[in-house]
Amino acid sequence: MRKGERTKQMILQKATSIFNQQGYSGSSLSSIMKETGLEKGGIYRHFESKEELALQAFDYSTSLLGERFKEAVSQAATTLDKLNAFIEVLKGLVRGDPIPGGCPIMNVALEADDAYPLLAEQAKMSMFQLLSLMERIIIFGIESKEINPNTNIKQLAILWISSLEGALALSRLYDDPSYFDDVATIYI
Amino acid sequence: MRKGERTKQMILQKATSIFNQQGYSGSSLSSIMKETGLEKGGIYRHFESKEELALQAFDYSTSLLGERFKEAVSQAATTLDKLNAFIEVLKGLVRGDPIPGGCPIMNVALEADDAYPLLAEQAKMSMFQLLSLMERIIIFGIESKEINPNTNIKQLAILWISSLEGALALSRLYDDPSYFDDVATIYI
Repeated sequence: MRKGERTKQMILQKATSIFNQQGYSGSSLSSIMKETGLEKGGIYRHFESKEELALQAFDYSTSLLGERFKEAVSQAATTLDKLNAFIEVLKGLVRGDPIPGGCPIMNVALEADDAYPLLAEQAKMSMFQLLSLMERIIIFGIESKEINPNTNIKQLAILWISSLEGALALSRLYDDPSYFDDVATIYI
Repeated sequence: MRKGERTKQMILQKATSIFNQQGYSGSSLSSIMKETGLEKGGIYRHFESKEELALQAFDYSTSLLGERFKEAVSQAATTLDKLNAFIEVLKGLVRGDPIPGGCPIMNVALEADDAYPLLAEQAKMSMFQLLSLMERIIIFGIESKEINPNTNIKQLAILWISSLEGALALSRLYDDPSYFDDVATIYI
């Protein structure tokens, strides 16, 4: 990797962590400068604006998460194992793995309404992918006769994602993983 | 009400709406100045800092909500009616009633980690009250033999709150009440 590329990657990683913890409108360029050790010009050489950096940082965090979800779920053999694998990835977010600050999609969903419209669009797409992955787990379960075929697939996916994401938020508010675990143990 | 008190109340109402929509760190004093039509000094005459205003605005929004919850739940006769009343108050938040921007407690829970530590403490307390109210509905249901006495009260309250709050967040992300309704109809 060329030096310029390495610097860009380093900025992206540090910014992702700051944005996810402090919010996209809440994060200041000065805190990103401090974390990266770069001056304003050093950051703007790679990202033309704070919004551009925010968009790429969000994309970075959801790609990272998306890969984890897909890998974990595809390697599991049964529906219960797949659901378990899905929940384990979310549980990682409770303790800040792979990024600190909780679920990046929910953070954007609950952040500023109009501050970053492109970011909201990205969040909608990412949440859609998360719901689709959960729907595929349910469909797999119906096909393998582990889940009742009369299940409303979309509704069940929304219930599972809502409750797990909601519990993740509670666990982060109280800095206590038991809220997430309380909900997760109902499903697995 | 004296003129000074009226002005203070007006600032509080407008600021509550801005903070809940744009986030506590994301809201600028200039947008509050614009909405209230006041200069900086006119706001600082009533609130000594942005943080003080944020704390009082959060308190204002959760008091408003808390009253709605208690009134709705206490007037309902059966467990199902109480749960229904509880859900109706949350459903109000989907469409921005009584304040725009979704659930103020979840917004703070998912906002900046360290920006406003006192605000996070207030959010913990408010969420605790919400969970307690849900637990009381469940206990009422057990006493009136509408809910199985072997139910884990705390766990069920966490599941219901997590899923409803999570679904409320999804409905706000997509500007589509059906996510919340999909989860709510499972319970009532």
